[in-house]
Amino acid sequence: MRDGEHSRDRLLEAATAEFAAVGIAGARVDRIAEAASVNKAQMYRWYASKDDLFDAVFAQHLDRIVDRVPLTPNDLPGYVVALYDSYLDAPELVRLASWFRLERAPTGDLLATHGDRWSYKLDLIAEAQAAGTIVTGITPADVYALLISIAGTWSPISATFTATEQESAAQHEARRAVLRGVVERALVGGG
Amino acid sequence: MRDGEHSRDRLLEAATAEFAAVGIAGARVDRIAEAASVNKAQMYRWYASKDDLFDAVFAQHLDRIVDRVPLTPNDLPGYVVALYDSYLDAPELVRLASWFRLERAPTGDLLATHGDRWSYKLDLIAEAQAAGTIVTGITPADVYALLISIAGTWSPISATFTATEQESAAQHEARRAVLRGVVERALVGGG
Repeated sequence: MRDGEHSRDRLLEAATAEFAAVGIAGARVDRIAEAASVNKAQMYRWYASKDDLFDAVFAQHLDRIVDRVPLTPNDLPGYVVALYDSYLDAPELVRLASWFRLERAPTGDLLATHGDRWSYKLDLIAEAQAAGTIVTGITPADVYALLISIAGTWSPISATFTATEQESAAQHEARRAVLRGVVERALVGGG
Repeated sequence: MRDGEHSRDRLLEAATAEFAAVGIAGARVDRIAEAASVNKAQMYRWYASKDDLFDAVFAQHLDRIVDRVPLTPNDLPGYVVALYDSYLDAPELVRLASWFRLERAPTGDLLATHGDRWSYKLDLIAEAQAAGTIVTGITPADVYALLISIAGTWSPISATFTATEQESAAQHEARRAVLRGVVERALVGGG
């Protein structure tokens, strides 16, 4: 029983690495089973298909994808900088979310099929707008979308240039300063 | 000869649709050949592999991906709004670029292997910074990365919510106004 649980943990860990690297269509279940030293027949008893295995991996990481960095409505620059750092620390989470967008949820709300993941954040933003610490005239959903997008300027899915841990500390500090200034000017209210 | 050219055009068109929809690993060359009514043997004479076919599709669309919207350094809000509209009009281009990022260019400059595609834009930004119409203290490369990222807030690869042509004109106009305000406050200089 214990052994089975450990096998399952190893399987999900190997599947996370494989799906983050090559996506759902690109993933090979044989490769995952081998990397996890799990018997293929056992794997198929737990997850009937590659899609089921991806669903399990995505569900397992959803909290880390969405809530890894707590939203601090009275410190939006700090929030965006913390997101920048989180993308640097865990690029596999951004890649999983991006494969999910491309392969599973081509339009609309990314997490429409995963319950209500945003609304408490939107409430926090609305409160901060009422208190004057976030600019008004932009819906809370749009403020949130902008924060995520600005934070992802150099993310692992960037359309221009990704940040990596191989770069210098000074490079990262410069980007953090840019993010702080942009968010301060664009979204922080007069108080 | 003419006929061959038309076949090749049809093949690239079918391949664009297939790669944009499902990516490189997910694409099936049989499905592409069938959709284009092109003989498979002929297809393999032109493109020896699925990867070669993707390279041809990506190269064919690269100008539209990178230069579809001309950068207007003295009207950054207008530039970002035009990008928003272009993502709405041609989601397949954003999806091709995103598959390319995920499947081919996991880190660094997205187009490092595709010649010098950015530097004339960075020169335009540097000139506008010198003239005072774009804020200083941010490198031209970072200004450009921010513009692309902000414009893509509701793009087909958005981590939150994608814009679609099915939404109301008022919805799109509201987002354009948000983008104009954000870019004006964050990146436009005093003149």
